[in-house]
Amino acid sequence: MIRDSYKLTATDALAAIASGRLSSVELVKSCLAQIEATDSTIKAWAFLDADMALAQAAECDRVRKAGLATGPLHGIPVGLKDIIDTADMPTQRGTPIFAGRQTDNSARLVERLRDAGAVIMGKTVTAEMAFVHANETRNPHDAERSPGGSSSGSAAAVAACHVPLSVGTQTNGSVIRPASFCGAFGFKPTRGVISRAGLLQTSVSLDQVGCFGRSLDDVALLTDAIGCYDQTDPVSYPRPRPDMLAGARADVLVEPEFAWFELPFNDRLSGDAREGLEAVLDILGPKVTRMEPADTLSNLVAVQARIHEYEIAKHQADVFDAHWDQISPTLQPIITRARQISKDEYEDALAVKASAEAFFANFFLDYDAIIAPSAAGEAPLFGEGTGDPIFCTLWTLAGLPCVSLPLLVGEHGLPIGVQLIGPAEKDDRLLRTARWLQKHLSEEAE
Amino acid sequence: MIRDSYKLTATDALAAIASGRLSSVELVKSCLAQIEATDSTIKAWAFLDADMALAQAAECDRVRKAGLATGPLHGIPVGLKDIIDTADMPTQRGTPIFAGRQTDNSARLVERLRDAGAVIMGKTVTAEMAFVHANETRNPHDAERSPGGSSSGSAAAVAACHVPLSVGTQTNGSVIRPASFCGAFGFKPTRGVISRAGLLQTSVSLDQVGCFGRSLDDVALLTDAIGCYDQTDPVSYPRPRPDMLAGARADVLVEPEFAWFELPFNDRLSGDAREGLEAVLDILGPKVTRMEPADTLSNLVAVQARIHEYEIAKHQADVFDAHWDQISPTLQPIITRARQISKDEYEDALAVKASAEAFFANFFLDYDAIIAPSAAGEAPLFGEGTGDPIFCTLWTLAGLPCVSLPLLVGEHGLPIGVQLIGPAEKDDRLLRTARWLQKHLSEEAE
Repeated sequence: MIRDSYKLTATDALAAIASGRLSSVELVKSCLAQIEATDSTIKAWAFLDADMALAQAAECDRVRKAGLATGPLHGIPVGLKDIIDTADMPTQRGTPIFAGRQTDNSARLVERLRDAGAVIMGKTVTAEMAFVHANETRNPHDAERSPGGSSSGSAAAVAACHVPLSVGTQTNGSVIRPASFCGAFGFKPTRGVISRAGLLQTSVSLDQVGCFGRSLDDVALLTDAIGCYDQTDPVSYPRPRPDMLAGARADVLVEPEFAWFELPFNDRLSGDAREGLEAVLDILGPKVTRMEPADTLSNLVAVQARIHEYEIAKHQADVFDAHWDQISPTLQPIITRARQISKDEYEDALAVKASAEAFFANFFLDYDAIIAPSAAGEAPLFGEGTGDPIFCTLWTLAGLPCVSLPLLVGEHGLPIGVQLIGPAEKDDRLLRTARWLQKHLSEEAE
Repeated sequence: MIRDSYKLTATDALAAIASGRLSSVELVKSCLAQIEATDSTIKAWAFLDADMALAQAAECDRVRKAGLATGPLHGIPVGLKDIIDTADMPTQRGTPIFAGRQTDNSARLVERLRDAGAVIMGKTVTAEMAFVHANETRNPHDAERSPGGSSSGSAAAVAACHVPLSVGTQTNGSVIRPASFCGAFGFKPTRGVISRAGLLQTSVSLDQVGCFGRSLDDVALLTDAIGCYDQTDPVSYPRPRPDMLAGARADVLVEPEFAWFELPFNDRLSGDAREGLEAVLDILGPKVTRMEPADTLSNLVAVQARIHEYEIAKHQADVFDAHWDQISPTLQPIITRARQISKDEYEDALAVKASAEAFFANFFLDYDAIIAPSAAGEAPLFGEGTGDPIFCTLWTLAGLPCVSLPLLVGEHGLPIGVQLIGPAEKDDRLLRTARWLQKHLSEEAE
């Protein structure tokens, strides 16, 4: 028995469980107690049934004691954004339209979690239909502030030590931004690494799955467990996935080369964020190349919006038609606008997206990673939106792997993340670079 | 470049590919040349398109050279029994009824193979609808003989070094028996380890997937790659799978304890098989306990037949109704008989099956493995059926993991396998025991 095991990273909890010092039931009980103690304020959970979580944990313990196979997440509780279908729990998608919605099948990534021996703790609060309108979740560092969105509950639950791991999604900045605001590690692997089968579809071209944890190893571990090729997901690719954990644990052979883009929208950064990032860039010194990108790069923000809005309006047309009065006043004008986008405009945007992907494929021949803000600064006040996703837009559009590292502290003592972006399908290399950066900065700080 | 790379095991080929001494294209070309040289006699392939195989191999080589992730079967050609659906190749199921049949989706295990970086070489000949009626494949050791069935082509292709690995299925004895006749390693893991989604369903209760290779490591490696939980397969289980390769490579801590059953149908063993098995039992000496099982155990043969026949008649009723005149005269009387089985008789059989499973769960508290014949002896002559599956029936019925080791040679110089059966979901322990047995016998032989 380990006191306060809810504080453990997944990696540490796994080691404790494997050695017999901790059971999954003990871990889940500790997490449930932490949820009980704090979730009336944080409100990270859309669905949580303590008995269901404990029954899964008891089964994990039974399997281990019986000498049966254990998985890479054996006995570890994981939270799932409430747009990820589960056959035994409701999936409400952050809107009253889907209250009590229960599917016959679970998402493919939930199958993978079962195979890995994970405990599905429950469903974490999402912004309305994984888009802009915030729901009730508060930032664990300051309940007056937003945790970000749309994966609000997934980020908050990990940051508040409700669970060591959670799964979210990102169509624009919905993993990296809340990770930054909540002081968690957020990792969105290359588009197509993780299947989206059984998830709310907001944008077939842009929706991507990402992971939250309290260490780099943890987000890598979770991504390894749930990634797989899935022929039913049009962006899933039929090739092997990188070994994320090996990447997160590998030392670099040569010190990495970084690029920093002076993008026109960098003026949206808060003073403390800009200052913190400049300090990081200073430490990196000649290892980072600052560049003024061509206008085409910042134009990608509009391209992302066009694709995102056109596709959600189309994919969810039936929902919007049937339940318009239940759509938030935040989302309604976006959908109304989206319906004005012509098929030609949309197709043009897809073509630009393809050229952006080609641009980045070449770009990473010269650099290991782009270093960028994860968000504009500290978390916004609750009620003032979920924060600006613009610092994630380009990379999400191009399907590149991105990780947010909780390296900075803002003027109110709140976390601010630093984002690294790497080449497609070389997520392991990005994680290796991220490991180096963490280590390098902590050494410099000494 | 390695000469005659078609002879390599998958494990050795992987090492050669990883080190750059061999490319996947070279390996596949070598295999294709071996097929070209021998398949006009053996007839292992129901579908083979050299260009498709080479294109996949070239893609594997491209991925590796680009520094992208490689999988556990990267660049290795794998044959698939022709009842396993593939979206880019036909699946004829060993009957003219399904000539040219092409599905939109691939089987789940094919997705897993893509994720593992394997090359899908083609489809291997199956007995008619994976049951009794043999198709054209010949035994690679003697073209006058049968390779066994129903996974005839999968066993023959591996034994003839057409591919290092292949996938088959077993509802009674369709992996272990042809492995024995062809001198290959055959491994049928615990029921539910490998998904059957996208495979011809002959018996929802009994159908199981198995693997062929030319070493114990190889069948373990393939099983690891394709196993996964699949909620759409009713016998797939939502728990971690054993690490098969670790099992096959592990040394035992204590010398294993074996059981040998003197079953009434052991009198069907040929003299040379009986003699060979007795020699193995002699070497094992006190490590094997010979026992006279209760009658209930041999009664399970009838129970298996009742379930198998009732279910295939039911699952494939539409096919039999619409195409009766295209059903072989071998299968027709079985289906006619099957249609006489009442629902009560069937349900009684399922209850006995459940009690057999409970019996074996207890049994393996005292023994590491059952040692048994894989088949009645050497391969039967071509045209005289695919051999008696009875030596596999009990274990398949109970869903236990079974492996056939090519340890014996019969009076005509043909291979005869020795079967080991282990406890459910402890396949890794069975493979560890199998490794020990192989090693122990080879040391004794010195």
